[in-house]
Amino acid sequence: MYTIDLNCDMGESFGAYRMGEDEEILQFVTSANIACGFHAGDPSVMRKTVRLALGRGIGIGAHPGLPDLVGFGRRNMDISAQEAFDMVVYQIGALYGFVKAEGGKMQHVKPHGALYNMAAKSPVLSEAIAEAVYKVDPELILFGLSGSNLIAAGQIVGLQTSSEVFADRTYQQDGSLTPRGQHDALIIDHRQAVDQVIRMAKEGKVKTMQGLDISIMADTLCIHGDSPNALSLASHIRESFEAAGIIVQAIGKSKQK
Amino acid sequence: MYTIDLNCDMGESFGAYRMGEDEEILQFVTSANIACGFHAGDPSVMRKTVRLALGRGIGIGAHPGLPDLVGFGRRNMDISAQEAFDMVVYQIGALYGFVKAEGGKMQHVKPHGALYNMAAKSPVLSEAIAEAVYKVDPELILFGLSGSNLIAAGQIVGLQTSSEVFADRTYQQDGSLTPRGQHDALIIDHRQAVDQVIRMAKEGKVKTMQGLDISIMADTLCIHGDSPNALSLASHIRESFEAAGIIVQAIGKSKQK
Amino acid sequence: MYTIDLNCDMGESFGAYRMGEDEEILQFVTSANIACGFHAGDPSVMRKTVRLALGRGIGIGAHPGLPDLVGFGRRNMDISAQEAFDMVVYQIGALYGFVKAEGGKMQHVKPHGALYNMAAKSPVLSEAIAEAVYKVDPELILFGLSGSNLIAAGQIVGLQTSSEVFADRTYQQDGSLTPRGQHDALIIDHRQAVDQVIRMAKEGKVKTMQGLDISIMADTLCIHGDSPNALSLASHIRESFEAAGIIVQAIGKSKQK
Amino acid sequence: MYTIDLNCDMGESFGAYRMGEDEEILQFVTSANIACGFHAGDPSVMRKTVRLALGRGIGIGAHPGLPDLVGFGRRNMDISAQEAFDMVVYQIGALYGFVKAEGGKMQHVKPHGALYNMAAKSPVLSEAIAEAVYKVDPELILFGLSGSNLIAAGQIVGLQTSSEVFADRTYQQDGSLTPRGQHDALIIDHRQAVDQVIRMAKEGKVKTMQGLDISIMADTLCIHGDSPNALSLASHIRESFEAAGIIVQAIGKSKQK
Repeated sequence: MYTIDLNCDMGESFGAYRMGEDEEILQFVTSANIACGFHAGDPSVMRKTVRLALGRGIGIGAHPGLPDLVGFGRRNMDISAQEAFDMVVYQIGALYGFVKAEGGKMQHVKPHGALYNMAAKSPVLSEAIAEAVYKVDPELILFGLSGSNLIAAGQIVGLQTSSEVFADRTYQQDGSLTPRGQHDALIIDHRQAVDQVIRMAKEGKVKTMQGLDISIMADTLCIHGDSPNALSLASHIRESFEAAGIIVQAIGKSKQK
Repeated sequence: MYTIDLNCDMGESFGAYRMGEDEEILQFVTSANIACGFHAGDPSVMRKTVRLALGRGIGIGAHPGLPDLVGFGRRNMDISAQEAFDMVVYQIGALYGFVKAEGGKMQHVKPHGALYNMAAKSPVLSEAIAEAVYKVDPELILFGLSGSNLIAAGQIVGLQTSSEVFADRTYQQDGSLTPRGQHDALIIDHRQAVDQVIRMAKEGKVKTMQGLDISIMADTLCIHGDSPNALSLASHIRESFEAAGIIVQAIGKSKQK
Repeated sequence: MYTIDLNCDMGESFGAYRMGEDEEILQFVTSANIACGFHAGDPSVMRKTVRLALGRGIGIGAHPGLPDLVGFGRRNMDISAQEAFDMVVYQIGALYGFVKAEGGKMQHVKPHGALYNMAAKSPVLSEAIAEAVYKVDPELILFGLSGSNLIAAGQIVGLQTSSEVFADRTYQQDGSLTPRGQHDALIIDHRQAVDQVIRMAKEGKVKTMQGLDISIMADTLCIHGDSPNALSLASHIRESFEAAGIIVQAIGKSKQK
Repeated sequence: MYTIDLNCDMGESFGAYRMGEDEEILQFVTSANIACGFHAGDPSVMRKTVRLALGRGIGIGAHPGLPDLVGFGRRNMDISAQEAFDMVVYQIGALYGFVKAEGGKMQHVKPHGALYNMAAKSPVLSEAIAEAVYKVDPELILFGLSGSNLIAAGQIVGLQTSSEVFADRTYQQDGSLTPRGQHDALIIDHRQAVDQVIRMAKEGKVKTMQGLDISIMADTLCIHGDSPNALSLASHIRESFEAAGIIVQAIGKSKQK
C-alpha cells in the first residue's frame, strides 16, 4: 500500500497584505507549512491559519525562513550555523504558541525558500537546523529535499524525516533539481508531472534529465499555492493519486507506526 | 514568614548592540523577564539569556512588548485586544522554544513597557493578555502592577498572578504610581525606598502621597537593570530584605503549593 | 474658473506583496502620494511608482507614515513631535532620491493614515511635520485635511498647502469628518458623493450632518485606490467634474501663479 | 604636497541602543560615513549625526548598507543589481533629507560592510551602486576599496572617486586585503601601521605579503570607530601625518580643483 503526503506553504499574508488562497487549498493538502513572521506571516495571520488547518485536521508545520521580509526569504544570506539554529528555534516556538493556544499539536518543520535550499547543500547548516528542531521537540518531523543534507542531518540527530519531491520539476543524475534558470527545469505538462510523482511514490524511482533512472524517496509532495492554477493542479493531483491507489494522508499519520 | 521575588528585565541586547549587564544583575534577582524580539532582543540573545538564567536557577519569564524596536516598546500604540492577544502568544511561544531547547521550564510572563502600562489601565487589553498567557500554558504566572486590571484579569481567567511593586516610586491613593512627569514621582533616598518595600512585603501597606495608608499586595519587586547604580541598589535591597527576615525567592517557588 | 486636484495613495506594494492597481488609477488622478517604506512600499516599488507617475506627468508626493508595516500605519502611536519631524524628513528624503534619480521634481507631501489623523488634531505634531517639509524643500506643497491643524501649521511655516476633501464622507459642523464608526459616516450614493464635491469645489460649502452649510476649502480630492470599485468611481468623478466645468489638474500647476 | 582624508563610520546608534563615540572621534576625522537606517541608525540618530558633523565642518557621506539590522549589514546577501541600485538610492535620499534640513551639502557615499565587500569583487553590483550615486547627484564622491571594482565603476560612470586604504591591514599582491581569517591579516604594531599609510600616501606604494611593492592609490584612510583604542589610534595617526608633511583634509576639498 502506497501513501503520500501533500504539503503546501500557508499563512503568508502579512498585515494588510493578502497572499495565497489558504482556505481553498486546504481542501486538497494534508500538511500545512505555516510562515512564522520572518519571511512572511504575522501573529494574527498565524493564529488564523493554525485554527483553519486544525479545523480541517491538516498536519501543522512551522515554516521558518530567513529574516528578510522584503525578499520573502528567497535571497541567500551568509548566516552562521548558530544563527540558523537560533532563528529556527525562535520561529518554531512562535508557531508553537499558537498551536498550544488552539489546543493542537505540531506535526513538522519545513525550512522556507533560501534557508531550505542552503540547507540542502550545506551539512553544517542542516545539522544546526535538525538540532534546533530536535531540541524544541524530538517528535517533530523534519521536511527536506529528498536525498539532501537536511534529510541526512535529521536522521543523524534522531528525528523522523519526510523526503520531499516535486511534480513539476525535473531531476538531475545526482538527485538534485534542475536549476530554475535552465530551460528544461520545469515540467509544464500536468499529466507528465503527475506520472512522475506516481512513479516516485510507487516505485521509488525517477528518470533524470540524463535519461537514467535513480532511486528517490517520496514521502511528501510540495504543492505550490501561489501559482495561478494551483487549485486545479492540486485537485488533479489528488484525484490521480486516488485513481492510482495511493493513499493521500498527513505524514504524521503514516509515521505513527 | 515573608517572601518576595526580585525580578529584572533581561536579554535586551540586539544584534551588534549591547544593553544591560545581565550576568552581574543575575546574582541578585530571582526572576528574569526576557525580551522576545519585538521591543528588544533577538534569537541569539534569547538563547544566551535563557541559558544564563537557567544556569543560575532563576525563574524565567517572557517579556512581550509592542512591535516597536526603534521606540523600545515604550510608545503607546492603539492596538486591538485581538492584536494584543496575538503578539503575546507569539512572543511567549518564541521564548518557549529556547526554554524547551535548553531543557528548562518557563515560570512567568510580564508585559513590557507601554504594553504593561496600557494593560494596567485597560480591562479589555488585560483580559486579552491574560487569555493569551492562559491558553499557551495555564501554569504560567502573570506579572502585573499590584492592584491593576492586569492582575484582576489574570485571576478571573484562572492564572496565578504576581503583584508587582516598586521601591523607588511613590504611590497615589488609588494604588497607582505617581506619574513619572511629576516632581515627587521618584524616591531618591535608597533607605526610604527599601523601607517602603519592606513594609509592603511585611504589612501589605504603603503610605500614599496623600498621607494615608492603603493596602497593597507585594509579590515581586522590580529591579531596573539599566539604571546607573543598578548593581549596588540591587545588592543593597537584597541584603536589607535578608536583614528584615524576608526570604527572597523566585515567585514560582512561593506559589508551589 | 474652478480647478481641483485628484490625489491617490500609490506604491503600497511591498516585496512579494501586491496592493493597489496603480497603473489603472493613474489614468484618472493628477497627484500621486507614494508610500516611503515605513507603513508600506519598498525601494524597488518606490522606483517603479515614481517612474510610472513621471511618465504620465502626475504630480509626485511623499506619503510618509508611522513605522508600523504590520499595522499599515493605521494605528495611532504616541510619538513625540521630534520623532514626527525626523520620520518625515527621512521619508521625504528617501523618495526624493528616486525622484532625482528619475530626473523629476517632487510636488507635495501628504502624511499617511494615523499620522495624518493625529496631525489633524494636534497643533504640535502638525508644526513638526510642516517644519520637516519646509526644511527639506520650502517649495513642497503640504496636503492636509481641509480646515485642520496641519493646513494651519503649513501656512504658518510658509508652505503652500492643499486642503483635502472627501467625496464619500459626511462632515460635522466643526468641519471634521464624521468618524468611520458612526452609521452615517459614509456617503454610499455615487451621485450624492459627486454632488458634494462639486459644491465644495465651486461654492466652497458643504452641508453638515447637523443640516447647516459651512465653508470648506477644496483644493484636492482624495481617491481611495483600494476600494473595490475604485476605478469606476474615479472615472465617474473625473467625468462629472469635467461636465461641471471644473478643471482637473495637479495642485502644483494651479499653485504656480 | 600630499593630502589624505580620514573617514570614519558614524551614526550607528539605534533607538535606545548606543554605539560608537561619535563626538570624540569627530575631533580627528575629516569625513563621516553616516548610517542610513538599514544596517544601523534611525531618523533621530541621523539628524543628530548630520548636525554634529556639519557643526565641525566634516565631509558628510551616506553609508548605505544591506537591510539586515540584526546582522549589522555584515552578512552577504544574494541581492540583484537592481536591488542594490534601489537600496542605495533610498538610503542616500534619506540622508539627503537631513542634510538639506540642516542646510548642508553631502560630500560622498561609501557602501557599508557586506555591501562594500560584495561590490569590491563584483563589477555588476559596483556598476549598479555607482549608477545609483550618479543618478541621485553626480557631484557625490564614491568611496571604495583602492583598486577595486567599485572605484572602476565610479570612474566609468563619471563620478569622482576616493580610493580607500587601511592602516592596520596587510595587502596581497593583487591589491586585495589579506582576508581577516588569516593569521597575518592585521598589523598590530601602531608604528608599522602608520608607516604603511604614510608610504601609501606619499609614494603610492605598499609592500605586499609576497614581499614585493605594488602601486596603490590612497585618497582616504578608514578609521575604525568601534575598536577599543580607536581614539588614541586616530589621534596618533593624525599627528604622524602632520609630522610627515601630509595634509589631512576632507576629500571634498582636495577634489575641488
